[in-house]
Amino acid sequence: MSLQEKTEWIAVDWGLTNLRVWVLGAGGNLLAERSADQGMEKLTREGFEPTLLAMIEDFLSDAKTTPVLCSGMVGTAGGWAEAPFQAVPCAPQSAEAFVSAKTNDPRIRVTIVPGLSQTSPAPDLMRGEETQIAGFLQSNPKFDGVLVMPGTHSKWVHISAEEVVSFQTFLTGELYALLARQSILRNAVAIGGWDDSAFENGVSEAISRPESVAAKLFSLQAEAQLSSGSPEAARARLSGLLIGMELAATRPYWLGQNLTILAAPDIGRIYARALSLQGLQAPVLDAAPLVREGLLAAYEALTATKD
Amino acid sequence: MSLQEKTEWIAVDWGLTNLRVWVLGAGGNLLAERSADQGMEKLTREGFEPTLLAMIEDFLSDAKTTPVLCSGMVGTAGGWAEAPFQAVPCAPQSAEAFVSAKTNDPRIRVTIVPGLSQTSPAPDLMRGEETQIAGFLQSNPKFDGVLVMPGTHSKWVHISAEEVVSFQTFLTGELYALLARQSILRNAVAIGGWDDSAFENGVSEAISRPESVAAKLFSLQAEAQLSSGSPEAARARLSGLLIGMELAATRPYWLGQNLTILAAPDIGRIYARALSLQGLQAPVLDAAPLVREGLLAAYEALTATKD
Repeated sequence: MSLQEKTEWIAVDWGLTNLRVWVLGAGGNLLAERSADQGMEKLTREGFEPTLLAMIEDFLSDAKTTPVLCSGMVGTAGGWAEAPFQAVPCAPQSAEAFVSAKTNDPRIRVTIVPGLSQTSPAPDLMRGEETQIAGFLQSNPKFDGVLVMPGTHSKWVHISAEEVVSFQTFLTGELYALLARQSILRNAVAIGGWDDSAFENGVSEAISRPESVAAKLFSLQAEAQLSSGSPEAARARLSGLLIGMELAATRPYWLGQNLTILAAPDIGRIYARALSLQGLQAPVLDAAPLVREGLLAAYEALTATKD
Repeated sequence: MSLQEKTEWIAVDWGLTNLRVWVLGAGGNLLAERSADQGMEKLTREGFEPTLLAMIEDFLSDAKTTPVLCSGMVGTAGGWAEAPFQAVPCAPQSAEAFVSAKTNDPRIRVTIVPGLSQTSPAPDLMRGEETQIAGFLQSNPKFDGVLVMPGTHSKWVHISAEEVVSFQTFLTGELYALLARQSILRNAVAIGGWDDSAFENGVSEAISRPESVAAKLFSLQAEAQLSSGSPEAARARLSGLLIGMELAATRPYWLGQNLTILAAPDIGRIYARALSLQGLQAPVLDAAPLVREGLLAAYEALTATKD
């Protein structure tokens, strides 16, 4: 069989800055994997289809229509087609809520997975993480507890009975990047390096006195100028203070809860360390494969709906 | 008398981004005032003298040496000449600690006012504010209490017996600018406009539950996307949350203390409003004229030392 004949469908994780494509055969067999820095923020609505076609051209056949299933920022109002948020509590992905995107090329049929929204206890949104959650639940359908998803915008997600009950987003990763790279602290904070005790002290101080974090940020700069601290320790301490703030705010999410961290391994270990200081054991699962697993689940749900 | 003959000395406020010059005659009489965007961050060490000369050339005479007194970032390690910090508790300006900068032009003699440092209770630094404080103390020598100096890096300064006892710096202004202009919140937060109740709620929530600020930042973005908030209210709320965090951390500085706010009038009013919600009345003094008044005090101290 030719590659075109083998191709059953195509999974796409289309985020703000990046685009990843998996070409799948029968039974979810992976035929090819590609990525590009053509994220949603670089594209106008008309740019999505040609960008995608350029990446998957070799797998398309004039003889059939290949389903393409996308998740992520591609479904925002400024994306390829707006996929309206589903309000929690709900399953992370529901085929009835998937949205079709208009295409010009008859060889593809594009479907977009929507994100999730919450109005109470606090307004919140996710787009992309719901697919990772669905991927996690494929292998852990009985999970009842809280998923910790650190990142640029870290999310704490309460899961029960295969549904997202509630969630809360933190700017921790973005705040770290702004402070470490663009604020007055940028000369005080190293790009790499680490210091466990500086991190742990930062976490503990922020949890016990969260209001003091605002004061302690400038101290990093003062310590650097007064030569009383290393840039590597400052980096670990800044990370500790911000993650400690997040833990102070998420206490109801972790106190007495069953926790699992879904993250890139390095950041996952840092969050696990911070939680262990509170006496909590949280396993770390690599989040990278979960998007594809979530899109596989979405495709199964989509084809089941059509049967 | 020619302008050159009338010129007795020159006061300079040389900050990170801007340079202000006052040309003074006998008795501190103002002969001219100039400013330029030639801040310390744009200059190498060799660039300071020609930059200053270009601004004051008309006032210099070959027949005499004109004293030039500078305060601000010009005295950092990367500035014209490093003026080592004075450790608190101490007077805001002490002529013994002033530092001479090397010059090539014999018509000027340049002296730099150092900043202040603190090692405990927390490492901290100021450079420039000490001149404003000295200016304030010229008119209020008996002041005993706390000066609130909002800005990019706001400072809370405990003053007693004409000395700076201790102080604490907050990144509030810089954090606001980074979040409102460069983070994911930038589309949710208006450039102008205001909403008093959104501001007041933000302040109160941050003071009563400072740890929740980390969670409430992303809510601004979610509220904007879910169409449940205006960008003007989001601007006021973000400002309220960050100032509320600062107030939560500075409680020992304002609880039962005598307060005066030194600030640009608009930001001064905002801080006064936040403090009034805690039942505190703090007069707002325009900080702009205080730098020159502080440099006048420094010049008097300098000439007194030499007599």
